[in-house]
Amino acid sequence: MVKENEVSEKLEWRINFPDRKSKVLVPESGILDKTWAGLKGLLGRFTSMVLKFLENAWNLGVAEPKKVIHGVKVGLTLFLVSLFYYMKPLYDGLGGNAMWAIMTVVVVFESNVGATLYKCFNRVIGTFLAGSLALGVQWIACKSGESFEPIVIGVSVFFLASAATFSRFIPSVKTHFDYGTMIFILTFSLVSVSGYREDEVFQLGHQRLSTIAIGTSLCIIITIIVYPIWSGTELHLLIFRNLGKLADSLEGCVTEYFEEGKTVPESEKDGSKRILQGYKCVLNSKGTEESMAKLAIWEPGHDRFNFRHPWKQYLKVGAAMRNCAYCVEALNSSVNSKNQAPEHLKKHLRDACMALSSCSSYVLKELALTVENTTKSSKIDFLVGEMNFSVQELQDALKSVPNSVTEPTVLSTLEAPINEANREPKTTIPLIMEFLPLATLVSLLIEIAARIEEIANAVDHLAGLAKFKLAMDEKANQKKPIEEPTSNAQDDEM
Amino acid sequence: MVKENEVSEKLEWRINFPDRKSKVLVPESGILDKTWAGLKGLLGRFTSMVLKFLENAWNLGVAEPKKVIHGVKVGLTLFLVSLFYYMKPLYDGLGGNAMWAIMTVVVVFESNVGATLYKCFNRVIGTFLAGSLALGVQWIACKSGESFEPIVIGVSVFFLASAATFSRFIPSVKTHFDYGTMIFILTFSLVSVSGYREDEVFQLGHQRLSTIAIGTSLCIIITIIVYPIWSGTELHLLIFRNLGKLADSLEGCVTEYFEEGKTVPESEKDGSKRILQGYKCVLNSKGTEESMAKLAIWEPGHDRFNFRHPWKQYLKVGAAMRNCAYCVEALNSSVNSKNQAPEHLKKHLRDACMALSSCSSYVLKELALTVENTTKSSKIDFLVGEMNFSVQELQDALKSVPNSVTEPTVLSTLEAPINEANREPKTTIPLIMEFLPLATLVSLLIEIAARIEEIANAVDHLAGLAKFKLAMDEKANQKKPIEEPTSNAQDDEM
Repeated sequence: MVKENEVSEKLEWRINFPDRKSKVLVPESGILDKTWAGLKGLLGRFTSMVLKFLENAWNLGVAEPKKVIHGVKVGLTLFLVSLFYYMKPLYDGLGGNAMWAIMTVVVVFESNVGATLYKCFNRVIGTFLAGSLALGVQWIACKSGESFEPIVIGVSVFFLASAATFSRFIPSVKTHFDYGTMIFILTFSLVSVSGYREDEVFQLGHQRLSTIAIGTSLCIIITIIVYPIWSGTELHLLIFRNLGKLADSLEGCVTEYFEEGKTVPESEKDGSKRILQGYKCVLNSKGTEESMAKLAIWEPGHDRFNFRHPWKQYLKVGAAMRNCAYCVEALNSSVNSKNQAPEHLKKHLRDACMALSSCSSYVLKELALTVENTTKSSKIDFLVGEMNFSVQELQDALKSVPNSVTEPTVLSTLEAPINEANREPKTTIPLIMEFLPLATLVSLLIEIAARIEEIANAVDHLAGLAKFKLAMDEKANQKKPIEEPTSNAQDDEM
Repeated sequence: MVKENEVSEKLEWRINFPDRKSKVLVPESGILDKTWAGLKGLLGRFTSMVLKFLENAWNLGVAEPKKVIHGVKVGLTLFLVSLFYYMKPLYDGLGGNAMWAIMTVVVVFESNVGATLYKCFNRVIGTFLAGSLALGVQWIACKSGESFEPIVIGVSVFFLASAATFSRFIPSVKTHFDYGTMIFILTFSLVSVSGYREDEVFQLGHQRLSTIAIGTSLCIIITIIVYPIWSGTELHLLIFRNLGKLADSLEGCVTEYFEEGKTVPESEKDGSKRILQGYKCVLNSKGTEESMAKLAIWEPGHDRFNFRHPWKQYLKVGAAMRNCAYCVEALNSSVNSKNQAPEHLKKHLRDACMALSSCSSYVLKELALTVENTTKSSKIDFLVGEMNFSVQELQDALKSVPNSVTEPTVLSTLEAPINEANREPKTTIPLIMEFLPLATLVSLLIEIAARIEEIANAVDHLAGLAKFKLAMDEKANQKKPIEEPTSNAQDDEM
């Protein structure tokens, strides 16, 4: 019995405290094992981090191949510039200064043509101005005697650098010459300070300018010839895609509200949710639009755009869209609120609301087409008119609400006598409370229609400034019906 | 008579055609005059442009002296760095490479501490990594024979530059290492390519690293010691100021709607309009918030903030605020719409709406104080509860609308029998139509209250993460009343 007890105790001990046993054992087997395990863990985590990073990079590359292409373009340009080092005749001409060409390429080559041109222009002008000024200061410093030379130069560097740095905050400088001002400070300091020691300032300046010229011209050639990415085109794409997204999101939102009962297949749920959230792209694209418009003005004529394409007007279209998107956001939240209107009220206004939302969304889609094809639409005035007519119809439908609403409410009280105690409130009081979310939806829809008209005005102004032509299919249609030409002539005037 | 005629003709001619005469005379007096006039005009326009620019600069400097101070700081740092050139012992140590220190200062010195530290860190790490890698590649190239050397280097520059340029688009790299990656490409290309010609690559690398070290440490010291501008503090200021602006704008908007008749003195009109538009600051500050939060994480502990202050949570507070501002925007437009509710309806809901808006605005102001003082508020739960109670009261007020509304409408029809023809519509139909703008206002106010609660949650989460202490005055109050400690204890748990 004793033995059996012992055995069972041992078994129990083994069974109950295996953790403690192993815990005690590990330190005995040495710190090395522990360190090894820790290292293996670290290595594993590091490897998984690297793998995750590579996976992200791969996904990004697959999703946006133009970013990969940009990388290859930079690599190619640097390879070409480094040829100046490898080829003896070129090296002898420029010497160690060829490094300025490499620096120029790395610093100046941006992912779109506008940014590259902006930086190239700023770099060349900044270097040239600062170089000339520095030589002037150098000359004055030389004349003022050896002991005063460092003082003159030091003081001029201090004042010019301070003033130029401050000027980078002035809006007009910040928008168009921020980079140039930085290069100005850099070049002025380098040339005036190094001139104190070196006598070959002129040669240095000449070599620097020529290497910068080589670097910038290579960048400009490669960025324009090899798969160019124009920020003007990107802005153009962004604006008309956002117009489309706003249209889909507005229509989807109202449809979802009125067709709540409808079951959406699981496979489409994600897609429809994405469509509903489209307005968020409009809300968040202010910064992108502004930076693209800033860079687009540096680009020469490309695609269907001239050199002086009215890019600033795109910003106004964007602002009008955002103004509209604020309301769509409020609409979306009122649609998703728990406090839902009763069915009979919804049914009463359903058709008018759906008609208005589809008209509004149709106007937005037509505006998207106008921008996309850079052609004037002959239909837009008619569509805006139809939208305003839908607003009128919705208001008419509202006017008939009180009469039609009271009846079903009374009926429902008769049909369901359970709420006997609350009968009085049920027949009169909930009227306004129940109507509240629907009233919000209606007045937001009306406000959205007004804001869409503002977008239409902005796009119309854009079409005027950029001299959009009449759409081709409209021109073809002109010949068929007899009345159309007059209406088109009106559109031309607008 | 003939003579008289001649004289009169001459007179007529002189009187009628003085323009033609002078036009003919000008070319005779020479092109020089014209050019001079043109030049004078150009010069005048140029002078006025320059004066305008200087005026702008002066106004900016007066409005934001910290920008002037930043300019002076950069000038001072450059002056200090240029001492390396002027002082013989320092120059002998570093030679012409002292120019890298100047370049580092110009490129790295940013207007706030976070950005400067971010760039310094990135520059040092990028240079070091790229330099080491370039030396490795150099070694391999040397081993592969003279004819293969340029190929190995060229190919490695091409691939590494391409890959690094592409990696700048990957979000995690873009946020924290964008500048470092650029410096990596620059240094790798410079060192590996120039290594092909120069044998003193090691010395070059060593000198470059030490000059960069001198430049970055000077920048860091000056930026932190002389009137530092912390982007964390700026973000902090932005968030609590925006909270205050949102509160004022919400309250002002509702007050303006219900006290429309009140005449505002001309002197206060501009101010009150500015207050009403305060929500626009919230709508437009997304980009600023994000860039500041990105830079703030590089800053050491300062003011009341530790090194690992939860800056990211500020972004969530900002997002919640923007979410609320969308609704305030819609509210503002519904308040300004032409379609106004009738007086008796407004009067009925006036008190409840004003109470809710002032409660909501009070919650926002308390949240602003919480963030401003980095102290937990013991009142906030109570205030949010009061706001929700106001929502309930507004809903109750709504419930009693139908009864009270019908009476004044009937009364007004009796009092004003001019609209005899429209009597029937006046008593029943306009009920809903007239109520529409007010209904929108009410439901937006209710939605805004819900969104303010989200802001309160975000701020509460921030207070938890940043371990905000209980406010001092609250602690003092704890001793006075007997019940208070328990309520404060609850707040501590939240």
